[in-house]
Amino acid sequence: MAANVTRESNFPEWYQTVIREADLAETSPVRGCMVIKPWGYGIWELVQRALDRRIKETGHENCYFPLFIPLSFIAREAKHVEGFAREMAVVTHHRLKVIDGELQPDPEAKLQEPLIVRPTSETIIGDAFQRWIKSYRDLPLLINQWANVVRWEMRTRLFLRTAEFLWQEGHTAHADEADARAETMRMLEVYRTFAQETLAMPVIAGEKPENERFPGAVSTYSIEGMMQDGKALQAGTSHYLGTNFAEAQNIRFQNEDGELATCHTTSWGVSTRLIGGIIMTHGDDDGLRLPPTVAPRQVVIVPILRDKPEDADVLAYCDALASELSAAQALGEPVRVIVDKKPVKSADKRWMWVKRGAPVIAEIGPRDVAGGQVSFMRRDALKDGGKLKSQGVPRGEFIAGIGALLSDIQSALYAEAKARLDANILSGFQTFEDVAAYFGPSAETEEDEAGASFKGWVKVSWSRPTGPALEQVSERLKTLKLTIRNAPLDQPESFGPCIFTGEAGVEEILIGRAY
Amino acid sequence: MAANVTRESNFPEWYQTVIREADLAETSPVRGCMVIKPWGYGIWELVQRALDRRIKETGHENCYFPLFIPLSFIAREAKHVEGFAREMAVVTHHRLKVIDGELQPDPEAKLQEPLIVRPTSETIIGDAFQRWIKSYRDLPLLINQWANVVRWEMRTRLFLRTAEFLWQEGHTAHADEADARAETMRMLEVYRTFAQETLAMPVIAGEKPENERFPGAVSTYSIEGMMQDGKALQAGTSHYLGTNFAEAQNIRFQNEDGELATCHTTSWGVSTRLIGGIIMTHGDDDGLRLPPTVAPRQVVIVPILRDKPEDADVLAYCDALASELSAAQALGEPVRVIVDKKPVKSADKRWMWVKRGAPVIAEIGPRDVAGGQVSFMRRDALKDGGKLKSQGVPRGEFIAGIGALLSDIQSALYAEAKARLDANILSGFQTFEDVAAYFGPSAETEEDEAGASFKGWVKVSWSRPTGPALEQVSERLKTLKLTIRNAPLDQPESFGPCIFTGEAGVEEILIGRAY
Repeated sequence: MAANVTRESNFPEWYQTVIREADLAETSPVRGCMVIKPWGYGIWELVQRALDRRIKETGHENCYFPLFIPLSFIAREAKHVEGFAREMAVVTHHRLKVIDGELQPDPEAKLQEPLIVRPTSETIIGDAFQRWIKSYRDLPLLINQWANVVRWEMRTRLFLRTAEFLWQEGHTAHADEADARAETMRMLEVYRTFAQETLAMPVIAGEKPENERFPGAVSTYSIEGMMQDGKALQAGTSHYLGTNFAEAQNIRFQNEDGELATCHTTSWGVSTRLIGGIIMTHGDDDGLRLPPTVAPRQVVIVPILRDKPEDADVLAYCDALASELSAAQALGEPVRVIVDKKPVKSADKRWMWVKRGAPVIAEIGPRDVAGGQVSFMRRDALKDGGKLKSQGVPRGEFIAGIGALLSDIQSALYAEAKARLDANILSGFQTFEDVAAYFGPSAETEEDEAGASFKGWVKVSWSRPTGPALEQVSERLKTLKLTIRNAPLDQPESFGPCIFTGEAGVEEILIGRAY
Repeated sequence: MAANVTRESNFPEWYQTVIREADLAETSPVRGCMVIKPWGYGIWELVQRALDRRIKETGHENCYFPLFIPLSFIAREAKHVEGFAREMAVVTHHRLKVIDGELQPDPEAKLQEPLIVRPTSETIIGDAFQRWIKSYRDLPLLINQWANVVRWEMRTRLFLRTAEFLWQEGHTAHADEADARAETMRMLEVYRTFAQETLAMPVIAGEKPENERFPGAVSTYSIEGMMQDGKALQAGTSHYLGTNFAEAQNIRFQNEDGELATCHTTSWGVSTRLIGGIIMTHGDDDGLRLPPTVAPRQVVIVPILRDKPEDADVLAYCDALASELSAAQALGEPVRVIVDKKPVKSADKRWMWVKRGAPVIAEIGPRDVAGGQVSFMRRDALKDGGKLKSQGVPRGEFIAGIGALLSDIQSALYAEAKARLDANILSGFQTFEDVAAYFGPSAETEEDEAGASFKGWVKVSWSRPTGPALEQVSERLKTLKLTIRNAPLDQPESFGPCIFTGEAGVEEILIGRAY
C-alpha cells in the first residue's frame, strides 16, 4: 500500500490506510460522522443480511421506532442517564429563519421539551412495550431494529468510534428472570457464532465486570475479538436489564394467576464497528482481506487487454466465465462475480482489488483463452516468498471448484485468526505486578502507540470484588491502559489466588488493552 | 372491521382503522413520529428489497452519508433553503447536564454551528461528490442511500406525512444535460414499473408544473397513483437538478479536452409513504389486502383445533403442508408461509389475517386431513354475495398451483386498481368553470372530508403558463383544494384550448385532490 505502512511499523496508520485504499469510508465535514462508501457499505449490507437471518430464525421481528427521544424519557432511568447524559445530540428548535441576513434557529420555534437523537432506544421502545404488553400471552415480546444512533464522541476513529453509527438493537420483554436470562445468553451465542462463521472472527464470549455494564443493566455480556495489534475489540454486547427499565417505564403484565407482574427485559446490539473488526482481524500489509461471506465481490475477473483484435475474445471469455460462476453456489449463496472492464491498466486493477480484499482475483489474457484455463490468485495467500502466487487451472475445474475454493478461503482466514487468538491469551500470572511487568508502561501518545509491541491478553484469577474494591482494581489497571475484557463463559474447575487481592480466586478474567 | 367503518362512509377514518387493525403502525409519544410495527415493517422490508434490486440493476451503488447537515451547507443553495428552511429539526447542543435538579441542554456544550437533521441529502452528498469527482472518467457517479429523514410537519398522518420517515434517495452526477436527463427519466421509469409490478399500483408518470418542483430542481417528475377516495398520491419523484446544486457546491470535472466543466446532477426518491399507497389502493371494508409480492406472509395456515386427540394430526398435516409450500416458488421467490399456532380461537385468527391482508388464508380441520384437501380463501376475492367464499382443492393440486394462484392474485389486484384509474380520469372539460362545477366546493374540515364523494381526476389542456400567471392558476385551483398532479409523459398529437386562459393548449395535465 501507499507509503509502505505496515501493521508492525504503525498499526493505527496502517488501519487508516487500509480504509482509504480499500475505499471503504471517509471522514465527513460533520464532526465525528463518517461517509460509508460503496465497498464499505456493500460489506455492511452482507453483514446485515447474514445477521438479520439469524435474528429472525431465533423468533425476533423487526420494527422501527422514532429517531428522537423526549428528554423526560431519558431522565426516567437514573443509571441510564448517568451513563449517556454526557454525550447526546439535542434538538431544541424545529425551524430555521433568516434573521439579520443570516439563517439560524428560529427563536419562536423552540421546542417545549428538547428531543434527544437516540443514543440507544431502551426508553422509547420500553414506552411502546408498556402499551403493547397486557398479559402473559403477549410474552415473550421479541423485537429488533436496524437504525442509526448518535453518541457525541470527542476522539473518533472510522468504524470503531464515530458520533453516528449504524447498528441493530434487539429489545425483548419476558415474564420472568429465567426466560430473560436465557434470551440474553441465546443472543450472545448468536453473536458468537455469527462472528466466527460469517466474519471468520474468533471471539471470546463472557460477562463484563460490574463497572463495565451497560448503564441500567443487571448483567452485561460481550464477545471480544483479538485484533492484530493484540488489542481487544468489543464486537457485540447482550444485556440482562432485570426489571430496572420495566419499573421505570411501567412495563407490567397480568400473569397466569391474574396478578400484575413486572417484565424482565433484555437488549443486545452490534454495529458498523464490526467492519473495523474485520479490517483489524484479517487485513495484511497489502490491504484488506475479506472473508468470502462478506465480500461484495467474491471473484473479480480482470481481463488483460492490449488494444489488439484478440481483446474481443478475451472479453467474451471473461463474460462467459462470469456468467457460469454466477450460476454456481458458494457458502450457501450464488457466487458474486464481476468482470472489471474499467479503462485502467490491468496491473492497476489487480492491485485495486488486492487492496479491497476480493477473495479471488483472476487475470485472463489471450494465453488463458487459448489454453482454456483460468489464472488466479487467492487473496488470503497472495504471496510466496515475497512474490505474487498465481495459479492456472482448466476453466471447467475452476468453475466446478469455486464453492470449495471460497469455503477454503473462509476457513483459512478463520484458522489464521484463531491460531493468533489461542497463542496470545497468556496464563500463569500470579500477581498484579507480574501482569504490569508483562504489559509494561502504556503508550502516552498516538506516536508511542504506533510502535507499541504486540502483547495480547492475559487470563488471570480474581476474587470478583465489587463496588469500591472493584473501582480500585479498575484504577490500577487504568494506569497501564488495561481493562478487564470479560470473564469467559468457559471457566475452569478451580482457581489460583486473586492477582489483585491475594484472596481466593472465584473466576478467571481476561485483561488487555482495548479499542 | 371494528365500528363497521367503510371507505364510503368515512375514508380517513377507514384508513386509520385499517392501519390499527392490521397492526401496521401507530403514533408515538414523539410529535409526528410513528412506530412501524412488525407487519408494517415486514412490508417495508419487501418494498426495499424489490426496489433495491432494481436500483442496483440500473448501475447504482449504495452508500451511507451523515444524518446531520451543517447549517451552512443548507444555506448554500438559495431555492433549496426557501423550500425546506421552514421545517427542519435543529441540533444546537451536544450534551445534557443536571442544572437545578433538572436534566437540560448544557449551555457550555452549545454547538458553534447548528446541525440540521437531514430533510434530504443533496447538500451533504454534493459535498462528497465535489471531493470524489475529478475527471470525466469518474462520471456518471451513481449513488443511492436508504435512510431516515426528518421534515417537521404540523399535520401528520401515519405513513402519508410524518415528521420522520424512511426512504431511499438516489443522487447522481453526469457530464452533460443529456446524460442527466436520461438518468432522471430512467429512474422515473424504474419507479413506474416498480409501482405497477411490485406494488400492483397503477400510476401515471409525468412532469410536475414549475410551481411544484423540488426546491432547486430544473425539472421534477412524479408517479401519481389514484387512491380509492379518488385522491392522488404522489408516490415517487425524480428530479433533474441542472447545474444548480453543482454550481453552489463546486462539483466540477476535467472534461475530455482537459477543460473544467460543471456536473449536471439528479436526485430521486420514494418513501414509507408507499405503504399508505398500498393501503389506499388495495384495502377493502374488511381491512388490508396485500399484493403477494409485498406480503410478509403469503399463505397463512390456520389449524382448526378442538382440544381433541385429532388435533395432533391436524397440526402435523399443517406443518407438512407449510414445509412443502415453502419449497415452492411464487413470483420468483420461495413462498412465504406460516402456520398460525397461537392459542386463539381459529375464527379470530382467520379475521386477524383477513384484516392484515394475507393473500391466501387456509383453514385446516379434521375433514381436510381426512379428505387430503386444503380449504382456503383468497383475500382479493373474500366474499360472494356477502358470504365468505372458501374453496377446497386436493392437497397436491394446491401445492402445485400455489405459484399460479399467487400470481393470479397479484394480477387481479392490479387489474382492479387499473380499471378504477382508467375509468376515473375524465376528459372533455373546456373551461375552468366546468372543472370547478364537477369537483364542487372542497371539504373545509376533516368531518366534511369524511363524506366527500369520489371524483377522481380530470385531464385538461393548458397553455403551460409560468411565473405569476402560473401562480394565479395555482391560486384558483387552491380555492377548490385542487392541484395539478402532473403532465403525463403520454401526450396526444393536438390540444384543445387552455382551460385557464382560453389560449391554445400545448399540453395535457391531470388535476385532482391529493394527499
